[in-house]
Amino acid sequence: MIVGVPKEVKVHEARVGLVPESVRELTRRGHRVLVERGAGKEGGWDDAAYERTGAQLAASAQDVFAEADLIVKVKEPQPREIALLRPRQALFTYLHLAPDRAQTEGLLRSGAACIAYETVTDAAGGLPLLAPMSEIAGRMAVHVGAHLLEKSQGGCGALLSGVPGVPPAKVAILGAGVAGSNAARIAVGMGADVAILNPTRPRLAELDAQ
Amino acid sequence: MIVGVPKEVKVHEARVGLVPESVRELTRRGHRVLVERGAGKEGGWDDAAYERTGAQLAASAQDVFAEADLIVKVKEPQPREIALLRPRQALFTYLHLAPDRAQTEGLLRSGAACIAYETVTDAAGGLPLLAPMSEIAGRMAVHVGAHLLEKSQGGCGALLSGVPGVPPAKVAILGAGVAGSNAARIAVGMGADVAILNPTRPRLAELDAQ
Amino acid sequence: MIVGVPKEVKVHEARVGLVPESVRELTRRGHRVLVERGAGKEGGWDDAAYERTGAQLAASAQDVFAEADLIVKVKEPQPREIALLRPRQALFTYLHLAPDRAQTEGLLRSGAACIAYETVTDAAGGLPLLAPMSEIAGRMAVHVGAHLLEKSQGGCGALLSGVPGVPPAKVAILGAGVAGSNAARIAVGMGADVAILNPTRPRLAELDAQ
Amino acid sequence: MIVGVPKEVKVHEARVGLVPESVRELTRRGHRVLVERGAGKEGGWDDAAYERTGAQLAASAQDVFAEADLIVKVKEPQPREIALLRPRQALFTYLHLAPDRAQTEGLLRSGAACIAYETVTDAAGGLPLLAPMSEIAGRMAVHVGAHLLEKSQGGCGALLSGVPGVPPAKVAILGAGVAGSNAARIAVGMGADVAILNPTRPRLAELDAQ
Amino acid sequence: MIVGVPKEVKVHEARVGLVPESVRELTRRGHRVLVERGAGKEGGWDDAAYERTGAQLAASAQDVFAEADLIVKVKEPQPREIALLRPRQALFTYLHLAPDRAQTEGLLRSGAACIAYETVTDAAGGLPLLAPMSEIAGRMAVHVGAHLLEKSQGGCGALLSGVPGVPPAKVAILGAGVAGSNAARIAVGMGADVAILNPTRPRLAELDAQ
Amino acid sequence: MIVGVPKEVKVHEARVGLVPESVRELTRRGHRVLVERGAGKEGGWDDAAYERTGAQLAASAQDVFAEADLIVKVKEPQPREIALLRPRQALFTYLHLAPDRAQTEGLLRSGAACIAYETVTDAAGGLPLLAPMSEIAGRMAVHVGAHLLEKSQGGCGALLSGVPGVPPAKVAILGAGVAGSNAARIAVGMGADVAILNPTRPRLAELDAQ
Repeated sequence: MIVGVPKEVKVHEARVGLVPESVRELTRRGHRVLVERGAGKEGGWDDAAYERTGAQLAASAQDVFAEADLIVKVKEPQPREIALLRPRQALFTYLHLAPDRAQTEGLLRSGAACIAYETVTDAAGGLPLLAPMSEIAGRMAVHVGAHLLEKSQGGCGALLSGVPGVPPAKVAILGAGVAGSNAARIAVGMGADVAILNPTRPRLAELDAQ
Repeated sequence: MIVGVPKEVKVHEARVGLVPESVRELTRRGHRVLVERGAGKEGGWDDAAYERTGAQLAASAQDVFAEADLIVKVKEPQPREIALLRPRQALFTYLHLAPDRAQTEGLLRSGAACIAYETVTDAAGGLPLLAPMSEIAGRMAVHVGAHLLEKSQGGCGALLSGVPGVPPAKVAILGAGVAGSNAARIAVGMGADVAILNPTRPRLAELDAQ
Repeated sequence: MIVGVPKEVKVHEARVGLVPESVRELTRRGHRVLVERGAGKEGGWDDAAYERTGAQLAASAQDVFAEADLIVKVKEPQPREIALLRPRQALFTYLHLAPDRAQTEGLLRSGAACIAYETVTDAAGGLPLLAPMSEIAGRMAVHVGAHLLEKSQGGCGALLSGVPGVPPAKVAILGAGVAGSNAARIAVGMGADVAILNPTRPRLAELDAQ
Repeated sequence: MIVGVPKEVKVHEARVGLVPESVRELTRRGHRVLVERGAGKEGGWDDAAYERTGAQLAASAQDVFAEADLIVKVKEPQPREIALLRPRQALFTYLHLAPDRAQTEGLLRSGAACIAYETVTDAAGGLPLLAPMSEIAGRMAVHVGAHLLEKSQGGCGALLSGVPGVPPAKVAILGAGVAGSNAARIAVGMGADVAILNPTRPRLAELDAQ
Repeated sequence: MIVGVPKEVKVHEARVGLVPESVRELTRRGHRVLVERGAGKEGGWDDAAYERTGAQLAASAQDVFAEADLIVKVKEPQPREIALLRPRQALFTYLHLAPDRAQTEGLLRSGAACIAYETVTDAAGGLPLLAPMSEIAGRMAVHVGAHLLEKSQGGCGALLSGVPGVPPAKVAILGAGVAGSNAARIAVGMGADVAILNPTRPRLAELDAQ
Repeated sequence: MIVGVPKEVKVHEARVGLVPESVRELTRRGHRVLVERGAGKEGGWDDAAYERTGAQLAASAQDVFAEADLIVKVKEPQPREIALLRPRQALFTYLHLAPDRAQTEGLLRSGAACIAYETVTDAAGGLPLLAPMSEIAGRMAVHVGAHLLEKSQGGCGALLSGVPGVPPAKVAILGAGVAGSNAARIAVGMGADVAILNPTRPRLAELDAQ
């Protein structure tokens, strides 16, 4: 199979669909991997690193989409990428279609088979490709919130931990799923006064017992 | 005694020399407290709050410096404030003179008695007016650092805690004093891999035992 | 020296001035120890245990007070005990004279040298005979409070820990001394939402760092 | 449906079958809710609170049982309540029939459909209506035990935590289910020396890993 | 049924197939239990302890194997034990056949039904007879490793915890199963800098949340 | 000053009086440092490493003792080293003279000024050169003890942590000083049931509060 990895084009996105060590897993198994020049640069992998693992470099996204049977990306395809998709091609990436009718219709028109990472389910009912993103989001949320509470950011000037003599800030977390429980750990670790709201009790009891 | 509280004029400073409850401690003991209009506004205390605790409002910093025996501030006096100081007046505030020859010479010329908060020492040799600032600085430093590590801030994209499968970031803390040990607690709480460097061992042994 | 241990007579007091192993320390050093019959019974030590460590049993408090050079007790002497004290005799016990003018005057009239456990000070300025009582008082205070919060005791029905879905009870502790900090540990251990109020900051910073 | 909430009549019972916010859930969905006057008083909800959420007040338990299709209670029905039950009526409450033949026979004779909270099972095999009671029971058990260990309660005078120099009390917990594991957490938090006995190992390994 | 317990003969093995309290469970249910003289001696149980729980003592392994329907052991049978096995007899012990062709063939030739402890699976898919051995192995591994790091054992002289001023040793654990996660707990408890490698993420997330 | 570092000759001793980075501190300040060839080899520092920091290599201990004003060692001097000491020379090393009359007399006869590391006291009354050794000794003691409890070492076969279903081993620590409190931390971290015996209470209260 020909696997293609175009450079991400959505604003602020520094990740890449396949890192060199993932490329090696594919080339070892006999697949051909086509990586757009510079695709890994922002994430810290140069073109030579891809070549060392057996990838071929492509001059443009057009070249990647034209040849590859499977396109592996990070973010949902942007309009110029949707225009390159074609029937009998597969796209594997985060899609988040629910709030995005234009993308949904574009993908349907393309005739490509599009699989959203966030919907891949494992045998135990978990979401193995979504969970790591929720862990990162939940953990980052707390220091992002701490930053936004600073006076210079327009916040109220509260410090999450307080200091001796000043009570800690209150943090309310909506939902005790992967993102929420990871946020709770970091917020507790930073010394905040944390409350988690969740629609069902058993998950709260689980967190409470940790 | 007439105690004066001018509005802070250094850029980004939202604090105020005396909060209303401190004013009350003074007015109860028979002192007169003169507060510049709007002095507490950025910190969340309006003029009425000061009036309720017995303060008199002054229209300008000039009025405060002209009448007060003792000026209570937060930040070192700015040039326009130094110009208002006069002999037989006392100034009580953070000064940090060491790197600031111009301020030092200005204060000497003013003839005022200037006491730096950061040098006030208690019976046990502690620095009771500096320590709380060091606690805040040490604790804030960690989420400020977490923010600056973000890719969008020009950082390397490391998350302090890591996530399962990705090791935590390494945090090196220089000095195990008040700021350093408070920073260490927050960094450990956020899941980072923390090392503290300190020139003497006994303090490290103390932290290690906690 | 003749050391006397009368049975405690204050209501609800089950302790005794010297336990048998303390008696042994004294008899080994050549002192004579006179213990009132039944003095240790409520605490769990029978007369035979005292005899085995070299004590002599006395039939009554009168006998103990009449012969002993030093009276060792637990609680402040009750009026009938004060009446038995005499000049050139020493009394060693908790006194708590501040709120108890009648006792103070009685002891003065007795001519005995009375040393209050709660005022004995060690080289480091600590109160080694008061501290253990404060530890016990602080730790007991929390489960006593938990008991009194029960609906059947006239309380509001709050459970210190809450349960998942119900927030913990709030516990406010006045003072961060020995009793207060011990109470805080138990209350935190029981899952309560604990705040400690203390007039000075350094002690709060110490507790905060633990 | 007409849902009826009689005032609890079992001795020492201060709870009520539905709190006002639960009543609102029902009235919003078009059900009629009949609450006996004073039903929530001991739990802290007055009649007006019920009326605000759409309940109708009933003058007596007789009125509630006469009209309601479904009776929602807390404790098992007392004889005078069983006498009010009737065919084609449902009773939803804790029943604990196993040791209570008289109640069982009374309920059978009533012709009502009686559902015991403690037997309601969720999809995962859990007992969602029993678990919270077990959590409360397990957590309360520890401070109740601490209270009963006091000398003045006829106990041996042991303090769960001990103090420095006196070892902690030993607490043995029979069963590592919901009540037992909650009791264990509180007892450990209070500083006791805790052992849990359980007929199977895997649950012990789970608790051990927390 | 006649249950036989021979003395273990593999070098360094101090355990025994059934301890006296397990024998009692069997004799109470009407089984006959035959224990080789001295079988429990190294584990701390003398022959009299077995007799008190209803076991009969056998003079030799030959006697045990000749009479028993079921042989209960600890370690895989040694060649002289395999020679004693016979058709219509069951053997229950750890076998670990995978790397041991000679044993496998011996057992097949014997005609006995041989059940390996390490393959017994419970309803939840766990390995209840293997798990406790893995717990012990994982926990022991850490102090065994600490011992082997000593200079006098040919190690590099690293102390797992380090000391203040000297960083802790790094411990890498391969696999986050029962042995690995137990090893991790002890290594973390000893103050080492621990990394766990595991082929799948969800188990790492579980450990991370503890 | 000429500082001499002979190779340690006591059996099992792999340390060295000065590591290369300590040598650099001295050579930078203008001292001459004479290191016996191979002195650092067992500790991991070769002769070249010493030369790079400005040390001169000496062919034998005789050469070092003959020239140096100050001898820096680790262990107490052995008889052949004592024979090399001379008046107007200083020896700085651990001595532990109390149980070693022969060494004491030898040092007195040598006429050298001998300073024992273990008696060097800092301003706060601490023993800065003894404390790190006590930390190491206390921490090592626990895994050494765990090793000696193994059946194969003649121990009773107890595992410090126990496993779920088997209680942890009991560890009694004599003395709550530096060695004892470090041992306690590691033993608690390994899951043992730890008791510390100490002649005075305040230190126990300190440890208890950590």
